[in-house]
Amino acid sequence: MYKSEQLAQHLKRLIENGSWSAHTKLPSLREQAEISGFSLMTVMNAYQDLEAQGLIYSKEKSGYFIAEHLKAQMPHSTTIVSLNPKIEINSLVFKYLKSIQSKDILPFGSAFPDHHLLTPTKLLQMVSQKARDQKSYDQTTNLPPGNLALRKIIAQRYAMQGISTDADDIVITSGGLDALNLSLQALTQPGDYILLQQTTFYGAWQAAERLGLKVITLPEHPTFGFDLQAFEQVIQHYPIKVCWFMLNAQNPIGFTVSDDIKYKIAKRLHEHQIHLIEDDVYEELFYGMNKPLSMKYFDRSNLVLHCSSFSKTLGAGFRVGWVYAGKYSEKIQHLQLMSTISANALIQNALVEFVSSHHYEKHLRQLRRRLEKNKKRFTQYLKQHLGQCCEIYSFPSGYFLWIRLPLHIDSLELYQQLITQNIGIAPSPLFNVSDSNQHYIRLNCSFEWNPSIQTGLDTLIHYILNLQSQS
Amino acid sequence: MYKSEQLAQHLKRLIENGSWSAHTKLPSLREQAEISGFSLMTVMNAYQDLEAQGLIYSKEKSGYFIAEHLKAQMPHSTTIVSLNPKIEINSLVFKYLKSIQSKDILPFGSAFPDHHLLTPTKLLQMVSQKARDQKSYDQTTNLPPGNLALRKIIAQRYAMQGISTDADDIVITSGGLDALNLSLQALTQPGDYILLQQTTFYGAWQAAERLGLKVITLPEHPTFGFDLQAFEQVIQHYPIKVCWFMLNAQNPIGFTVSDDIKYKIAKRLHEHQIHLIEDDVYEELFYGMNKPLSMKYFDRSNLVLHCSSFSKTLGAGFRVGWVYAGKYSEKIQHLQLMSTISANALIQNALVEFVSSHHYEKHLRQLRRRLEKNKKRFTQYLKQHLGQCCEIYSFPSGYFLWIRLPLHIDSLELYQQLITQNIGIAPSPLFNVSDSNQHYIRLNCSFEWNPSIQTGLDTLIHYILNLQSQS
Repeated sequence: MYKSEQLAQHLKRLIENGSWSAHTKLPSLREQAEISGFSLMTVMNAYQDLEAQGLIYSKEKSGYFIAEHLKAQMPHSTTIVSLNPKIEINSLVFKYLKSIQSKDILPFGSAFPDHHLLTPTKLLQMVSQKARDQKSYDQTTNLPPGNLALRKIIAQRYAMQGISTDADDIVITSGGLDALNLSLQALTQPGDYILLQQTTFYGAWQAAERLGLKVITLPEHPTFGFDLQAFEQVIQHYPIKVCWFMLNAQNPIGFTVSDDIKYKIAKRLHEHQIHLIEDDVYEELFYGMNKPLSMKYFDRSNLVLHCSSFSKTLGAGFRVGWVYAGKYSEKIQHLQLMSTISANALIQNALVEFVSSHHYEKHLRQLRRRLEKNKKRFTQYLKQHLGQCCEIYSFPSGYFLWIRLPLHIDSLELYQQLITQNIGIAPSPLFNVSDSNQHYIRLNCSFEWNPSIQTGLDTLIHYILNLQSQS
Repeated sequence: MYKSEQLAQHLKRLIENGSWSAHTKLPSLREQAEISGFSLMTVMNAYQDLEAQGLIYSKEKSGYFIAEHLKAQMPHSTTIVSLNPKIEINSLVFKYLKSIQSKDILPFGSAFPDHHLLTPTKLLQMVSQKARDQKSYDQTTNLPPGNLALRKIIAQRYAMQGISTDADDIVITSGGLDALNLSLQALTQPGDYILLQQTTFYGAWQAAERLGLKVITLPEHPTFGFDLQAFEQVIQHYPIKVCWFMLNAQNPIGFTVSDDIKYKIAKRLHEHQIHLIEDDVYEELFYGMNKPLSMKYFDRSNLVLHCSSFSKTLGAGFRVGWVYAGKYSEKIQHLQLMSTISANALIQNALVEFVSSHHYEKHLRQLRRRLEKNKKRFTQYLKQHLGQCCEIYSFPSGYFLWIRLPLHIDSLELYQQLITQNIGIAPSPLFNVSDSNQHYIRLNCSFEWNPSIQTGLDTLIHYILNLQSQS
């Protein structure tokens, strides 16, 4: 065990014992180094590890603080590894997506951040300027693998995190879901076994169904998000071809898996030569000082296809994502040329200019602060009014709250009641095909607080309390 | 037989007998009515029929003229109906598409018209203006089935051709190929039989392979493009679930099937309740006075899914297409939400403004005139230098020439020789999986004549004559 891991475990026990209350400032790095006798570097690694697990959060120039959501780190999973459950998720997802599509529906069920936080003015100016130039529309230079300059910038951003790569490894796609789907198609044949997280983005289920794959699911770990032991068992007992995991700001629950666990996952993948499709579309939406590492960072044998997009940072309407495809680049391009051909040429050209400018980082910093502020406000309000009967899982990244309703409340029923009030929520059957764990909802809390948001939350609270009292 | 059909057949015999030389003006409608004793309407229908078959062409305010390419209307097909030939087309297509992608390659092999003819200034201004408005990027209003205003405009354009529809029938897609693929996926299950034209767009083969479908091919008719008799035989003997046809400005050959044959195809489809996916992406690129009718026009039982796009008229880099999906709208939206989600929001919004303005029709008229002019120039030059050994099929629409090389010249070999000279051409094995008919090439002739184009054509001519003399 690393020294930093040792220290992190020690601190974690203290945190879990309730030794510190929420928002208590931790000893500074220097103080902690003096107390513990470890080096400054070791302490920093331990703090970052705790932060990555959502146990503590950091504020620039202020240090580290105990996170709010300490009692239960993660929903306790009641299901163990399950093989190939019947997939009924498709029509449910479709009805759900259509139902929340209207402008009249309060978008707590939406998967996208409030669009007022995205599409920064500077980007709009750049798109507008590029739009006047006929050259911006030339598809030739934007065909698969996509705009070279954009791929270079994306490669540079990997390099900044210590992941060595170049433009040839990157393929630009029509959004993040396209990247994920193309990767799965490139890596599998019908009948192959794939491993999904038990509570996960429904797109993974849909892709598996479409490609005729056998699905095994892995329950989330109540403390660490990822259950390493269960993972080891699965890959020993089943011929898993590909894993599809989200380990940073996991959708829908929100947890971020620690670097230590990521390292161990990578090791197992390497030993068993299993590919991983890493859905990392929220990678930029961390609240702490450091961007969480991706599995790609720990990948030494080109097993990880890392998928991300600009949809959650600049706007879903752009439809531009990418995959770090490495040696699978050609296969993925092949599939693209048979389907969507390429992402929009103008948008690729405009993104080159914006993402390579300092405006992008500035925008990301602002976005993170705003999301953090909005999530705090939502969390406080909901804890205040629902704290007695619900568990609110509020992790320091992204813009989702994961809420455990009282066991007997069916989240689908709550969703159906609220939609009649023009309020959207995302019920857990969208993310989980098992029969248990159907009493959770995902809530989009990216919105600036205003009277209509508060009224919407009040209605949500009213309906939950009402269902609660009916039992 | 209709009176107009009778007249058309009579005139056709005269044309095929060589009674008139190329570019001879036909009697005016009024004169012909007087000569024949038929009504003006009957004469007009007959002329339009002949025009749709490429036997005559029309000029606004000047009347009808004998077309240039009379000796052989269509390549004679040597293959009869064939079941499920082995598909080796994928890797060939990929290598081919990558090889012509470079800016250094003269784009005679490209599937897209010269981009200088597309992206009209007015459209660029509109995109630029929309780009400054944050609302343009809002994905909510552009999710499947796509931007309502855009769907309304598209529906209006169908209505202008006598096809009654409304916005609910239309689904906006990420380009025309996406529309075709989604349609095929919505209509088939693995193992189903589908019917393709023998010489066809390779995307159809690729889609069939991906979806695990059994492919039957229909040879093209030497005079009419579409072999109705063979078609009737196939649908009587095989349980065809879906046809995928291109009947206007067919890619790669270029012919347009007559209304009369379209009517008969529709009748057979109705009798056998077979669906048709109609690839009509060149529908706007006719040179005559009237836009050719689509199969959708003749479809009385909602069997035709008509697919088109703005790629060939405004620019392939936009990646916006659509399908007239009718009752399959929901199924197709379902598939979209699992894959590309939607086309770019900004572009959908900008297209609303441009396509609803008079600028769109003005642009289309200019585009058609330019394509016609460029095709004539290419045709003349090639006939002059290759007329002795090659047949040049030049139909009055689109921007492709289909060239039959001397039988012993392998078009793949010619392609490989020319690519070393930085000249791209599209060899027939890309479009045809049968062993015969491998001595054709498709040539993109959308480019303004200039010295570099002429030099490129000279090199092409030189290599063909060289291969010819080697035998």
